[in-house]
Amino acid sequence: MHPLFNKHLDLSKQYFERLLKPGDIVIDATCGNGHDSLFLASLILNKDRGFLYTCDIQEEALTSAKNNFHGKIAPQLMQRIQFLHICHSQFPEEIKPQSVKLIVYNLGYLPGGDKNLTTKTDTTLKSITQALELITPGGAISITCYPGHQEGAIEEHAILELASHLNKNVWNCCFHRFVNRPKSPSLLLLQKAKN
Amino acid sequence: MHPLFNKHLDLSKQYFERLLKPGDIVIDATCGNGHDSLFLASLILNKDRGFLYTCDIQEEALTSAKNNFHGKIAPQLMQRIQFLHICHSQFPEEIKPQSVKLIVYNLGYLPGGDKNLTTKTDTTLKSITQALELITPGGAISITCYPGHQEGAIEEHAILELASHLNKNVWNCCFHRFVNRPKSPSLLLLQKAKN
Repeated sequence: MHPLFNKHLDLSKQYFERLLKPGDIVIDATCGNGHDSLFLASLILNKDRGFLYTCDIQEEALTSAKNNFHGKIAPQLMQRIQFLHICHSQFPEEIKPQSVKLIVYNLGYLPGGDKNLTTKTDTTLKSITQALELITPGGAISITCYPGHQEGAIEEHAILELASHLNKNVWNCCFHRFVNRPKSPSLLLLQKAKN
Repeated sequence: MHPLFNKHLDLSKQYFERLLKPGDIVIDATCGNGHDSLFLASLILNKDRGFLYTCDIQEEALTSAKNNFHGKIAPQLMQRIQFLHICHSQFPEEIKPQSVKLIVYNLGYLPGGDKNLTTKTDTTLKSITQALELITPGGAISITCYPGHQEGAIEEHAILELASHLNKNVWNCCFHRFVNRPKSPSLLLLQKAKN
């Protein structure tokens, strides 16, 4: 155990905990088996407030995520979660610009699923470009990349290129990588200024 | 203002706050004007416990640091600070292996001082190699690099190369850089496992 964080996962969760509060609107753009979504739900939902969009392009992932939620989320809170079987480049139009506190991407393939079904660089870039518009001032986008496989390395490179051109007075773009674990996931955190 | 941290400086201070507690032994290897040291002292010193080694190779920096401390640190706590006019590659022999909770490096030149007097890559690497032995399990090394000038970019590259070879079961090496501010300082955090 390391004193501040062990893995990428600890690091991103710490940021989620510090950023989110009950009542926030959050999108899990690539829910996979739903572990992130479950954690996000616990931070933002109560009976009156908060909303979570849990998205995946794979039906299998959404089913797995729903099963993962079963018995762990109170039924009244389940009404504040929408499961969306969509490509992450197509967020629902009902989501208004500058309304979302956090959008989470966990790229790559579904754990335990078909490794050929990874996220694709062009749709990921489209999605992030949309996501930038949806984030509220003082919100953030968290992007976990998997440079340990070839498509993931290309995707990470393209996302960093996109982030490098963002207006530095609005977006604080901090890239975290684990130097002595080159195949470890990396984390790009895009924070939008409050004012 | 960004919700989690604005600059490299906020990020490193947050790590210091989370890592340190009263009674810890800390080394500020390159104290410069002493701003980091002052903050570190506030986290670790009380009348009975804690010790801070505040080092710099430049007499001018140590004088500036001492002046900066004047009136801000209680006299009884000043006894728990040792100002050392040394090259950061030569830590005092009295400091025992695995006894130091945190070693802080802020590389580059003294703010407001002679810009030709930057830290040098070879002495920095020697120093970090020594520092690795001094850190207690559950401690850390924080290294701020300045890739915005040429010597700083070479130094950062060499330090990352060193870190990439550290035993991944002992050292968690997370490198933080600000993607859309390429001249901004970067932060390399080396955390040593507790067990």
